[in-house]
Amino acid sequence: MNPPDQFEGTFNVTFRHRVLFERDALRTGTALANVLSSADEAPVATLAVLDDGLVHAAPEVPGLVEDWFRRHQTIATLAAGPIVLPGSERAKQGTGPVVDPVVEAIRQAGLCRHSCVLGIGGGALLDAVGLAASLAHRGVRLIRMPTTTLAQGDAGIGVKNGVNIPGVTGGKNLMGTFAVPSGVVNDPTLLTTLDDTHWRGGLAEAIKVALVKDHVLLDTVEANADALAHRDLDCMEHVLKATAELHLRHITDGGDPFESELARPLDFGHWAAHELEARSDWAVPHGEAVAMGMIVDLQVGEAMGLTDAGTADRVESLLRQLGFLQAPCGNVTTSDLLAGLEHFRQHLGGRLTICMIQSPGSSIDVHTVDMDTAASALDAVLAGR
Amino acid sequence: MNPPDQFEGTFNVTFRHRVLFERDALRTGTALANVLSSADEAPVATLAVLDDGLVHAAPEVPGLVEDWFRRHQTIATLAAGPIVLPGSERAKQGTGPVVDPVVEAIRQAGLCRHSCVLGIGGGALLDAVGLAASLAHRGVRLIRMPTTTLAQGDAGIGVKNGVNIPGVTGGKNLMGTFAVPSGVVNDPTLLTTLDDTHWRGGLAEAIKVALVKDHVLLDTVEANADALAHRDLDCMEHVLKATAELHLRHITDGGDPFESELARPLDFGHWAAHELEARSDWAVPHGEAVAMGMIVDLQVGEAMGLTDAGTADRVESLLRQLGFLQAPCGNVTTSDLLAGLEHFRQHLGGRLTICMIQSPGSSIDVHTVDMDTAASALDAVLAGR
Repeated sequence: MNPPDQFEGTFNVTFRHRVLFERDALRTGTALANVLSSADEAPVATLAVLDDGLVHAAPEVPGLVEDWFRRHQTIATLAAGPIVLPGSERAKQGTGPVVDPVVEAIRQAGLCRHSCVLGIGGGALLDAVGLAASLAHRGVRLIRMPTTTLAQGDAGIGVKNGVNIPGVTGGKNLMGTFAVPSGVVNDPTLLTTLDDTHWRGGLAEAIKVALVKDHVLLDTVEANADALAHRDLDCMEHVLKATAELHLRHITDGGDPFESELARPLDFGHWAAHELEARSDWAVPHGEAVAMGMIVDLQVGEAMGLTDAGTADRVESLLRQLGFLQAPCGNVTTSDLLAGLEHFRQHLGGRLTICMIQSPGSSIDVHTVDMDTAASALDAVLAGR
Repeated sequence: MNPPDQFEGTFNVTFRHRVLFERDALRTGTALANVLSSADEAPVATLAVLDDGLVHAAPEVPGLVEDWFRRHQTIATLAAGPIVLPGSERAKQGTGPVVDPVVEAIRQAGLCRHSCVLGIGGGALLDAVGLAASLAHRGVRLIRMPTTTLAQGDAGIGVKNGVNIPGVTGGKNLMGTFAVPSGVVNDPTLLTTLDDTHWRGGLAEAIKVALVKDHVLLDTVEANADALAHRDLDCMEHVLKATAELHLRHITDGGDPFESELARPLDFGHWAAHELEARSDWAVPHGEAVAMGMIVDLQVGEAMGLTDAGTADRVESLLRQLGFLQAPCGNVTTSDLLAGLEHFRQHLGGRLTICMIQSPGSSIDVHTVDMDTAASALDAVLAGR
């Protein structure tokens, strides 16, 4: 009997995704022990990787990490001293700054697939650490402790990672993987050390996900805009929890966790934002860029008759109240940014698909963009009007 | 109402894995059109990456690839000319030889996640090309055309990829991902250009999967050993189909496609093999190394009372008839190879778990190895006895 010429099969893989908010997680908390503990491996050998920006702002963190592991040695042990690596977009300039050193540290510490990498930092550091963890031994467990508002609400919740190829067009997030972390621990007390730009950064993503999915969250941000601008931690924690949960539900319940479809609603406003960041050589932070990108797409949406009239003005007013739309954009030009549409299409794949807002909480996918309106809106945003 | 402190969700992802055997696939075949075609994107932009070893042995292949795409331009188009990159273990020495150039070619050609990379070559090249495809844009579609017996039966069927970190212990396959190809097209006619070492290489993996899962396949290889040694293509195709199908069923039906458990039955005989390859600086080819590693583990199994007496002798005799167990191992020592047990444990993760054969077709996992017997068996194998 001859074997067949063709054979195929399908299989399912189940992924679990969890996010825990807890204040003082490294001092008195239980969340980290909860996500680190493993049924089949105790204590879990762990490599802690810290963002240099965090350590600069909060020099006590490496010691807190070491103390935490000393107190929890039946659950997990540090396989090496905490390593401090470049945060912010420096983390993502190729594999040199973070990915290669983390893979090498994993090898030197003798970590295995059931060991753990604990990344503590902003979204860019976590993106690069996550790529290293997903590559080493084809995937060491990753626990994220995001330390910025952007990362706690958005970047740290995603099930993807990536680094840029520096110095080339279309290099943003060109290398990365989809990988679900073992757990995400969001400690709001870590947010108190942020400068104002990083404090407000996550609010751009909160407004984004509110526009796409939840008009109540937009009302909440508006109602608390003054407190948020004045660094009310309770308000921020509330908004970040809602933002993170909407993001997690989109992944777990949205039907396309690894983004094989064309639609990408959580990238609302991001085509111009990604290009603005790259063209400014990352002088414009992500939150600022997303704020600008959303205004552009809301104005385009209104001009195309897709978006309820007045939405762009409403959101622009809210963003300004929070401190957005005032960052200088350097020498970036409107035609530079229009090229971002094609880079966005290439990165998502297939036909250009852009998420537009109908009314807050309701979105629609379109495949063409009114380029004249986009150009005018970009002109205005770049001029700071 | 305050949002909750913790939230989690689970999601399932379904993967499809398919393997098609077809002779003259680049000349008269339909399999490649079958796996390349896409419902939502036609023609599919494709980057072809060829193994330099293949092109050296069969210089007509790049032209055949270009002709194939010219004849099928409604289904797929070449986004750039075929690129030829280093095959064999040279492909896997870090990201320089293959991964980086393929990612860069994907960027330059403007490929997106719905485009395709077509890798044509041996298992090492496909491992490196697969890693590049799984990283670029977080995953461009990959189609594999394996061109060696090892790759058609084993390496090309797996749902993983990887490269080594060169020059360090434990660096074998240290960086990689799990990624399911869009399709695998095995063309047996490509095997006629192989040298004898690469011709027989896949038979080591055939005997491995037969020992672990299917005693009938072992009988088949034995009954046809002479024809296989004398390069009978029909016999080889039969054995490779059976091998590939057992491998695919293990992935799709075995319950652990992405190897999150400790057991790894398809790595029977591989702990010593991986170390032997690395310590010999890849002078010992994979198939030869697996042949030696299986003999070691069969002898250890017999000494530990796990493996039916006589199995090691039976398999050794078969391997010798096929031409294995005669490769020189250079200056590699038994104590070098014993270190492979710990590297194997680290790479798989968790507690040491080794697959042992009870009788052909039936295996058992053990967590300790009789080191004295392993040392004696390694001594004998290294001495060519």
